[in-house]
Amino acid sequence: MTPDATEADIQRVIATVESIGLKAHPMPGANRTAIGITGNTGAVDPEPFVELPGVFECVRVTKPYKLVGRDLKHDKTIIKIDDAEIGGAEPAIIAGVCAVESHEQTMLTAQVVAEAGCKWFRGGAFKPRTSPYAFQGLHEEGLKILAEVRDTYGLKIVTEAIDEPALDLCEKYADVIQIGTRNMQNFSLLKRAGQARKPILLKRGMSSTLEEFLLAAEYVMAEGNYQVILCERGVRSFGNHSRFTPDLAVIPAAQKLSHLPIILDPSHSTGTRETVIPMSRAGIAVGADGLLVDVHPYPERALCDGPQALLFDMFRQMVGEVRAIAAIVHGVRS
Amino acid sequence: MTPDATEADIQRVIATVESIGLKAHPMPGANRTAIGITGNTGAVDPEPFVELPGVFECVRVTKPYKLVGRDLKHDKTIIKIDDAEIGGAEPAIIAGVCAVESHEQTMLTAQVVAEAGCKWFRGGAFKPRTSPYAFQGLHEEGLKILAEVRDTYGLKIVTEAIDEPALDLCEKYADVIQIGTRNMQNFSLLKRAGQARKPILLKRGMSSTLEEFLLAAEYVMAEGNYQVILCERGVRSFGNHSRFTPDLAVIPAAQKLSHLPIILDPSHSTGTRETVIPMSRAGIAVGADGLLVDVHPYPERALCDGPQALLFDMFRQMVGEVRAIAAIVHGVRS
Amino acid sequence: MTPDATEADIQRVIATVESIGLKAHPMPGANRTAIGITGNTGAVDPEPFVELPGVFECVRVTKPYKLVGRDLKHDKTIIKIDDAEIGGAEPAIIAGVCAVESHEQTMLTAQVVAEAGCKWFRGGAFKPRTSPYAFQGLHEEGLKILAEVRDTYGLKIVTEAIDEPALDLCEKYADVIQIGTRNMQNFSLLKRAGQARKPILLKRGMSSTLEEFLLAAEYVMAEGNYQVILCERGVRSFGNHSRFTPDLAVIPAAQKLSHLPIILDPSHSTGTRETVIPMSRAGIAVGADGLLVDVHPYPERALCDGPQALLFDMFRQMVGEVRAIAAIVHGVRS
Amino acid sequence: MTPDATEADIQRVIATVESIGLKAHPMPGANRTAIGITGNTGAVDPEPFVELPGVFECVRVTKPYKLVGRDLKHDKTIIKIDDAEIGGAEPAIIAGVCAVESHEQTMLTAQVVAEAGCKWFRGGAFKPRTSPYAFQGLHEEGLKILAEVRDTYGLKIVTEAIDEPALDLCEKYADVIQIGTRNMQNFSLLKRAGQARKPILLKRGMSSTLEEFLLAAEYVMAEGNYQVILCERGVRSFGNHSRFTPDLAVIPAAQKLSHLPIILDPSHSTGTRETVIPMSRAGIAVGADGLLVDVHPYPERALCDGPQALLFDMFRQMVGEVRAIAAIVHGVRS
Repeated sequence: MTPDATEADIQRVIATVESIGLKAHPMPGANRTAIGITGNTGAVDPEPFVELPGVFECVRVTKPYKLVGRDLKHDKTIIKIDDAEIGGAEPAIIAGVCAVESHEQTMLTAQVVAEAGCKWFRGGAFKPRTSPYAFQGLHEEGLKILAEVRDTYGLKIVTEAIDEPALDLCEKYADVIQIGTRNMQNFSLLKRAGQARKPILLKRGMSSTLEEFLLAAEYVMAEGNYQVILCERGVRSFGNHSRFTPDLAVIPAAQKLSHLPIILDPSHSTGTRETVIPMSRAGIAVGADGLLVDVHPYPERALCDGPQALLFDMFRQMVGEVRAIAAIVHGVRS
Repeated sequence: MTPDATEADIQRVIATVESIGLKAHPMPGANRTAIGITGNTGAVDPEPFVELPGVFECVRVTKPYKLVGRDLKHDKTIIKIDDAEIGGAEPAIIAGVCAVESHEQTMLTAQVVAEAGCKWFRGGAFKPRTSPYAFQGLHEEGLKILAEVRDTYGLKIVTEAIDEPALDLCEKYADVIQIGTRNMQNFSLLKRAGQARKPILLKRGMSSTLEEFLLAAEYVMAEGNYQVILCERGVRSFGNHSRFTPDLAVIPAAQKLSHLPIILDPSHSTGTRETVIPMSRAGIAVGADGLLVDVHPYPERALCDGPQALLFDMFRQMVGEVRAIAAIVHGVRS
Repeated sequence: MTPDATEADIQRVIATVESIGLKAHPMPGANRTAIGITGNTGAVDPEPFVELPGVFECVRVTKPYKLVGRDLKHDKTIIKIDDAEIGGAEPAIIAGVCAVESHEQTMLTAQVVAEAGCKWFRGGAFKPRTSPYAFQGLHEEGLKILAEVRDTYGLKIVTEAIDEPALDLCEKYADVIQIGTRNMQNFSLLKRAGQARKPILLKRGMSSTLEEFLLAAEYVMAEGNYQVILCERGVRSFGNHSRFTPDLAVIPAAQKLSHLPIILDPSHSTGTRETVIPMSRAGIAVGADGLLVDVHPYPERALCDGPQALLFDMFRQMVGEVRAIAAIVHGVRS
Repeated sequence: MTPDATEADIQRVIATVESIGLKAHPMPGANRTAIGITGNTGAVDPEPFVELPGVFECVRVTKPYKLVGRDLKHDKTIIKIDDAEIGGAEPAIIAGVCAVESHEQTMLTAQVVAEAGCKWFRGGAFKPRTSPYAFQGLHEEGLKILAEVRDTYGLKIVTEAIDEPALDLCEKYADVIQIGTRNMQNFSLLKRAGQARKPILLKRGMSSTLEEFLLAAEYVMAEGNYQVILCERGVRSFGNHSRFTPDLAVIPAAQKLSHLPIILDPSHSTGTRETVIPMSRAGIAVGADGLLVDVHPYPERALCDGPQALLFDMFRQMVGEVRAIAAIVHGVRS
């Protein structure tokens, strides 16, 4: 649409799309609204659209993904809840506990996160664990603790849904719903996430290509939820000096192809506390829109992934360093 | 349990396990029944069990998986439905269509599979597809066609469930329920599969370690379903001469650690028809308990994975060759 | 050239190629001789050749490799020394010691290899070791022991050259010169191998693509040595159940693109003795032209790679099994 | 040795080591000299050393590498030629042409590198190419151009040696000798590099583990050359959005285990110009001691790896950004 297209213009295009049995996906950008079309089996004839008021151009997207791509929407997508942003000028530091283990552990951590000036809090209430005998999270009780974090500190809550019932609950209690790496191609869950009215933080599968990653986001968007945050969390490789291999090259590559913001998880991708700070710096330096990072008041007692959790002092140091680097990168990018 | 333990002896052990708040997993083998115990958080005291009638020995399993392993149950598990077996002396050739596309395509293929003397038929009614815009299967309509295959040709039906509702339907119509590679760590689905009363064919994740693979099977078994068939389907690697890298070394490695049968999917692991026959031979030669293979009457028109489907003549040739090789391997193994 | 082209016809074409400053590579096949041309920077004008007596056709090879490919020479290359063949109907079993450690160890092993009816013996006198402090081989003394194996048992000797001086010595003492996986892209060594007048057994780099592998063979052939045997020895992957991941899919893929024979090393690719027999069967079943396999009289005392060496009885069992499988595969392929 | 050990003390220890048939490796650090011992087959008895004047302690190194590790020498190694340093406070930016193609291309680039305040120049005269038919470098003629770069601009020259004769020439003309990724386990070349009296820049093999990488450096050091610079250049993975996957996690991991400096090659690891700047920033942010980066005056005409070469303006931008980031990281690290 043209920058000056009215809401009526947009609705008219949507109605026209729907009148021929297709689905319209209006996505507002900084300057103009893009309207994606899906549901077609072949090329869509641009004729009915091209002369409607407010239509700027009709672009045929030849890539396998449609709504995710820059071809359709060039402006970068910014996820915004109140004054908290992901994809904006400041790096979004989403910090917190890997798993909500107790009220005390969670609130202690949240206080440190808030005092560091961060606006997002992560915490898992449903934990996908490799072993059926490992701690699987506090479930709804955990979500209630997270809601208390928001009420107390104003932090926006990011938490993982591992299946449809969990997603129902997360949608009720949280601000952003995470889909984990092992569910990146759980297509039923992706479709359900596409029906949620909250942003989705989608972690890359541990051996997924960039195209598969973008198509997973497309699953969410094709259902009408355009608020998707991509998250690189390390790929599986032969090396044993880190738990996974953080693939920083995917970040500029994704930003070139897609308008969605992309962040880095330096904690799960490396698996060791001492590497998290340098990798956080690297993530912001390479241009990531934010970080998803584990912090713990006493990681030696953590029920899940303790060795990768930052201590409070390390966390504060990290925040300072990445902000300084972001200022350099942002100077560069704007 | 001792070979001559009675059903009453077994029930007495189970009752004792449950009386201390744990879960008992009785698994009959060729000679004796093993009873796994889960639900404990530390070591279980063998005292209450060791002198019960029919108890042969109490073994503490120190591996992360309990029920899957040879430590608990040394005898190989054989999946048996009527006269069809997986894990027995003959290779189980599970052949059929990647996706059920039509009644004609499916029945034509089933006839060829049956005439070749095979006892298992595969066909997908729910297809997990990388793109949201690709053909996703005929759903219940497809399952009905598969049920007709069973009624007409006596073939046992193997079909994939991609989520809980699909699993409910597959349980109703099929004989074996497949969990696909992208869902190998969809733990909610694994738990649901563990409550099914039909065998589960579990495909290895495309970058999962053997331990992760066995722990995924453990999820199913921990819920009480001990009928699990493992399936190697190729791992992700840097090569581009095949779609995935079939990891044949995992087959003897899995057989050493686990009593569960393991088969090979030569179709999805290679992605090209001409490689399927040699890879099928290799799979049986390395000791796989069977094959999961795509066949199609006119693959150039297939809606899914046509390039890897065998033509009918190729399929018949493959069956002949792998049977001859199985005779050599079986001579060796028994 | 046509099947009835005379030696004079061939020489006339070679002379014509050389007269325009290019290099001619005559390669006899079962039915006809192919003459490759290298040294050109653009397309070669077929005009001077097309009407020469005995010329069948002029084919422009558009692949990055010229001499290695089936485009130039369709007939499979068979490496033949006396009655020993690699690439012929029978599988070539190249068995022996990983490292020549002593006269006794080598001769004991050679006797078993010869008695099993095998025609090739492997043994390393120059060992490329990851650590500078590990046993690096007996060097010329080892080569002399290998020469004695040939004199005593009539076995053809395959041994590895790790640099130019070692290659000079290997050329003097051995029948086939091996270039190891870590030297697959040691281009200077490849060029030197191309000047040797003995066949080259080229191991695939542990993370090389098929194209890189074929181009490494092209380096050898471009220097005039057309006797190259390819060898798959496992690729690096994330798994830890075997030392490397044997990539059996590369064998039919290489055979489709190239006329060179290709064998499998089941010992280095798996790293554990008990997997070597099943992997040997799989290699022959997938269509490999032979095996390169480690045997040791007392592997617990081996100075190099003991855990992967077959015991004598296991070796004899393996030979029997792979011959039976080869008969099935060969029936199929011919 | 103690900080106040005299040269005579050091020589006395060396003489004692040699008197029992072992090899001594004196390595001066910022505060004290470490003396490594190799050549032993079992544990070395500390008795003869422990009471010699100037001996601080005898440490038994149990890792597979001895001289490379922090156990032996805790102080970081700084490579220093005149006022140019690698491993010091400032990031070492080693920039230049992938291949020396002409006098003009090289001198133009060198001028830009020098004007940006960089002190090191890279340029290849011997190019290891995947295809035997690709441009392989200008050889000695190229080295002479590089020597002119040094004479004109005072830049220190880094250039690759692909075999022993090339190394002889590089030692004559250059300041630092590079061993490429494909030769990381060319052990004969590593030994020859260990006899060179110039620093060695050792690139990590494209699928080598950190331990293999350090052991390759150990090969060089075991021969007496302790001036080694490690270089991460990307590992092979399944992804196709970058040519290789830059493994930034290996940088802090190597720095923890080894006293050697480690730099990043953002050009070969990504393969695309537009990713080189963000990856350079990330490399310095993660703590790398420098960068090895391709620049070209007209990359569309480059004979080798043009798509990854920075244009002059991009290079200047990159230098500015990484210096700003280094200031932040260095603040942190010191």
